[in-house]
Amino acid sequence: MTRDSLNSLYEKKTHNSKKAYDNSVNIFPGGISHNIRFFKPYPFFVNKAKDKHLFDVDGNKFVDYWMGHWALVLGHSPTIVVKKLARQIRQGTLYGTANDISVNLGETIKKSIPTSELLRFCTTGSEATMYAIRIARAVTKKRIICKTIGGWHGFNTDLMQSVNYPFEIDEGVGMTGREGDFVESIPYNDLDRSIKLLDSVKDDLACVILEPILGGGGCIPADINYLRGLEEYCKRNDILFVLDEIVTGFRFNFGSYSSFYHLDPDMITLGKIVGGGLPIGVLCGKKEIMKVANPVENTNKEQICYIGGGTFSSNPLTMTAGYATLDYLSQNRKSIYNKINRLGDMARNGLRKLFSDYGLRTQVTGIGSLFLTHFLTDKVNEITNASDVALSDIQGLTRYHFALMAKHGIFFLPRKMGAISTVHDVKDIKNLLNATEKIIKSDIFLKIKT
Amino acid sequence: MTRDSLNSLYEKKTHNSKKAYDNSVNIFPGGISHNIRFFKPYPFFVNKAKDKHLFDVDGNKFVDYWMGHWALVLGHSPTIVVKKLARQIRQGTLYGTANDISVNLGETIKKSIPTSELLRFCTTGSEATMYAIRIARAVTKKRIICKTIGGWHGFNTDLMQSVNYPFEIDEGVGMTGREGDFVESIPYNDLDRSIKLLDSVKDDLACVILEPILGGGGCIPADINYLRGLEEYCKRNDILFVLDEIVTGFRFNFGSYSSFYHLDPDMITLGKIVGGGLPIGVLCGKKEIMKVANPVENTNKEQICYIGGGTFSSNPLTMTAGYATLDYLSQNRKSIYNKINRLGDMARNGLRKLFSDYGLRTQVTGIGSLFLTHFLTDKVNEITNASDVALSDIQGLTRYHFALMAKHGIFFLPRKMGAISTVHDVKDIKNLLNATEKIIKSDIFLKIKT
Repeated sequence: MTRDSLNSLYEKKTHNSKKAYDNSVNIFPGGISHNIRFFKPYPFFVNKAKDKHLFDVDGNKFVDYWMGHWALVLGHSPTIVVKKLARQIRQGTLYGTANDISVNLGETIKKSIPTSELLRFCTTGSEATMYAIRIARAVTKKRIICKTIGGWHGFNTDLMQSVNYPFEIDEGVGMTGREGDFVESIPYNDLDRSIKLLDSVKDDLACVILEPILGGGGCIPADINYLRGLEEYCKRNDILFVLDEIVTGFRFNFGSYSSFYHLDPDMITLGKIVGGGLPIGVLCGKKEIMKVANPVENTNKEQICYIGGGTFSSNPLTMTAGYATLDYLSQNRKSIYNKINRLGDMARNGLRKLFSDYGLRTQVTGIGSLFLTHFLTDKVNEITNASDVALSDIQGLTRYHFALMAKHGIFFLPRKMGAISTVHDVKDIKNLLNATEKIIKSDIFLKIKT
Repeated sequence: MTRDSLNSLYEKKTHNSKKAYDNSVNIFPGGISHNIRFFKPYPFFVNKAKDKHLFDVDGNKFVDYWMGHWALVLGHSPTIVVKKLARQIRQGTLYGTANDISVNLGETIKKSIPTSELLRFCTTGSEATMYAIRIARAVTKKRIICKTIGGWHGFNTDLMQSVNYPFEIDEGVGMTGREGDFVESIPYNDLDRSIKLLDSVKDDLACVILEPILGGGGCIPADINYLRGLEEYCKRNDILFVLDEIVTGFRFNFGSYSSFYHLDPDMITLGKIVGGGLPIGVLCGKKEIMKVANPVENTNKEQICYIGGGTFSSNPLTMTAGYATLDYLSQNRKSIYNKINRLGDMARNGLRKLFSDYGLRTQVTGIGSLFLTHFLTDKVNEITNASDVALSDIQGLTRYHFALMAKHGIFFLPRKMGAISTVHDVKDIKNLLNATEKIIKSDIFLKIKT
C-alpha cells in the first residue's frame, strides 16, 4: 500500500470532509484554527464524539487516541460529566463573579497537589505558563527564564523560543527579535550541559520551567535524575523551579506527576484533564510565592503581580466539568490509573515487539497512558530529546499514523503521541497492534527498513 | 445610609458568601480568580444565574448588569443556547480536530464583518489581541505597536502597558522592564497629540490597536473623528489599523461597531458575545494580512507567523453556543438592537436627569446598551479618556454601585459599566432609576455634592 493508494482510500471515504475543507480555507488561514490540526491531504471534519470514538461528516468512525489534545482521560462526553453539565448549562455558563463551584474544584486540586498551596484559575494553559513566569520574575526580581529545547508551553510571546525545529531559529515571524534576550534554552535530559548553561545566567535567572514529560516535543519522559538535578540546582541558587504539568497532571495518578516522584516544585501549571474537557488553565504555587498576585493585599502597582484578566476564568461550566472529572477520578483512582497505565504498557510493549520482529528500528517512548513510536534513522539511534525527534523519520511516523487513520479507523493526530483513556480497553490495544502489523506488512515502511 | 450601615446590611444578607470567601482566601490569592471580581468587604458567591438574575449562596437575587463581563447579550443561559448546548455536551465538548460547527460560526462572522476575510478562533480575547500584534509585526516587518492610554486588551505581556492608573508606571511587578520598548501609548480621543506621538515612531510602527469604545477603561466611546483620523493616518503610512471589538462586536448592531461607522480596519478582534457565554477569542483580518498565518502555505519558520496553539480553540461547545447566539441575533436583529439600544438611552437619560435634578455633578457615558456613571470632581469636568476617569470620584462610584447591590438587589461590578441584554426591560430600567433616586436621597453622596 503506497502513500498514493492510501491517499485515494482516504479521499474516497471523506468526500464531505473534502467539501468542508475546501469551504474552510476561505474562512480560516489554512482551513483550520490550530496549526497542528492540519494534515495532508486535508483533515477530516468531526461532527460528533462519544467515549472513544470520533465521527466525521462522512459517517466514518475513528477510535481516538488524540483525545482532545490528550485532555479527555474519561473519553469524549463521559456520562458523569454530561449529567453535571446538563444541569449547569441551565444555571449559567458565565457568572463573571466569585462562585461556589470554583471553590470545590480549587479545593480538590489544592488537596491533591502539595505545591498547590494557592492557585489561580485562568482559561488556557498558555495563560497559566505566562503567569508562572511573570510571578517568577516578580518574586525573584530577576529576568531570565529557562526552558528546555523543544519544550512547549503554549504560544504566548514570553515562551516562544526553541519550540520547533530548527530550534535556534526564531519561532516564526512577527516577533521583535528581543524576546529571546531573557530566555535561555537548555538541552532536555542533559543535566551537565543544562547546569553549565544555567550557571552562565545564574545571576539574573528567575526560574526554570519544563515539562516533566516532553509532550508536543515527542512524548519523552525526563530522566528523574534530570528533574532532581534541576530542582536541586534551583533550590541552591534561589531560582524558582516550575513544572508545566498541563499534560501530566492527573494523567498517571491522582495529583501531579512531580509529587509521585517526590519533587517539590515552587509552581505547577495545570490544564487539560482538570477542565474535564472544557477550557482551563491553572497556576498553582507555594503560598509565599503566589501571594504577590493577591490584589486585595497588594493595592498598588509597585507591589502587585497582575495575573488576572480573563472573562472566562473560573467560569461555572469549566468548573463543573473539571470538578465532576476529578471527583470521579478520585473515587476510582486505583482502578482507573491501574487500568490506563497497564494499557499503556501493553501498547508500548506490543509495538516494540512488533516493530522489532519485523526488523524496523523504532523506539516507543512514553510512560503510563501516553505513548509514541519514533522511527530511528542513520542520524539518530536513541530518542532522549526533541532534537533526536527532529532527526528521526518523521515522514515514516506520519505515514504510519495516516495509514492507521485511512485504512484502520484509528486516529492519532499525525506525529503526535497517543493517550489512552478509561474508555479504551484491551481489545482496542489489540486492534491497534493488529492494524500496525498489517501496516508493517504493507510496503509503506519499505524506505525505512534497515 | 452610611458606608458602614451599607456594609452591615450587605454582611447581614451574605453570611454564606462570607464563609465561602473566608475559605476561598486559603485557596486563591485574594480569594478570587480575576482581580476585578473582588470588592469590599467581600464578593458574594454565585451558585446560579438565569436570564437577568444572579443568585447567590445565601438565596439573594440580583438583577445583573455586569452580565458575564458584558458577554451575555441574551442574558444568562438563554433557552435558544441551552437547547443547542444540551445536545452538544452529549456529542463532544472537545474534538481537538477540524469540525463542521466551527465552519458555521466562522462563516457567520465572515459574512457580517467586512474586515473578516479570514479569521482564526482562539480561546480568549487576550490571545486574540496577542495574535493581532504578532501578525501586524510579521506583515509590516516593523516592531512598535501603539495602544491607547487606559486601553485594555487582556493581560498578555505584549499589551501590558498603560492599562491602570497611574498609567506611566509599569503594570505591576514581574516584567523584564523592556516590554515597553516597543509599545507607544497615545491619549485616547486626542487626535493631534496622538498623531504627534505616532509620527515620532512612524518608521518602526507596525500597528495601532484600540477599542472603539474604551470598555474596562471607563465606557467611553471614541469620537468618530478620532477613529477616522487614526485610520486615515495608518492607511497613509502603511501601518495596520486594528480595532479591538471584543466588547463592541455584535453589541450595537449585527456585526462590528466599526462597520456601522464605515471604518475599514485591517484586523478586528472579537470575543465575549460571539462565544455565546463560552470561552472564545477571534482574530479577523484582511486576506492579504491573515495569510501569513497559514501553516499549509508557509512551511518554514522564516515565513510563518505562529498564531496557533490552543487546545480549546474552536471547541464544539463554544462554537455551538456562539453560533446559536449569532443565529438568533441575526434573525431578530432589528427588534433586539432597537430594544437594547433604546433601553440604554432610557438608562443614560434617566440617570443624567436624576443626578442633575439633585445637583450631583456626574457624566453618564456610553452608547447603545452600555452605560456608566462618572462622578465629577474639582479635578475633572468632563470624561473623555481613562485619565479623566482616574481623576473622577471613583470612591463615589463604588459606593453607588455597592448601594445598588446591597440595598436594591441590582448588580454592577463596582466601578464597571453596565450592559443591557435582551432579558432586561423598561421596568428594570425604571427600578434602576428609582433605586438610584433613593440612594441619592440617602447620605452616601454627601461628600461629592457640589
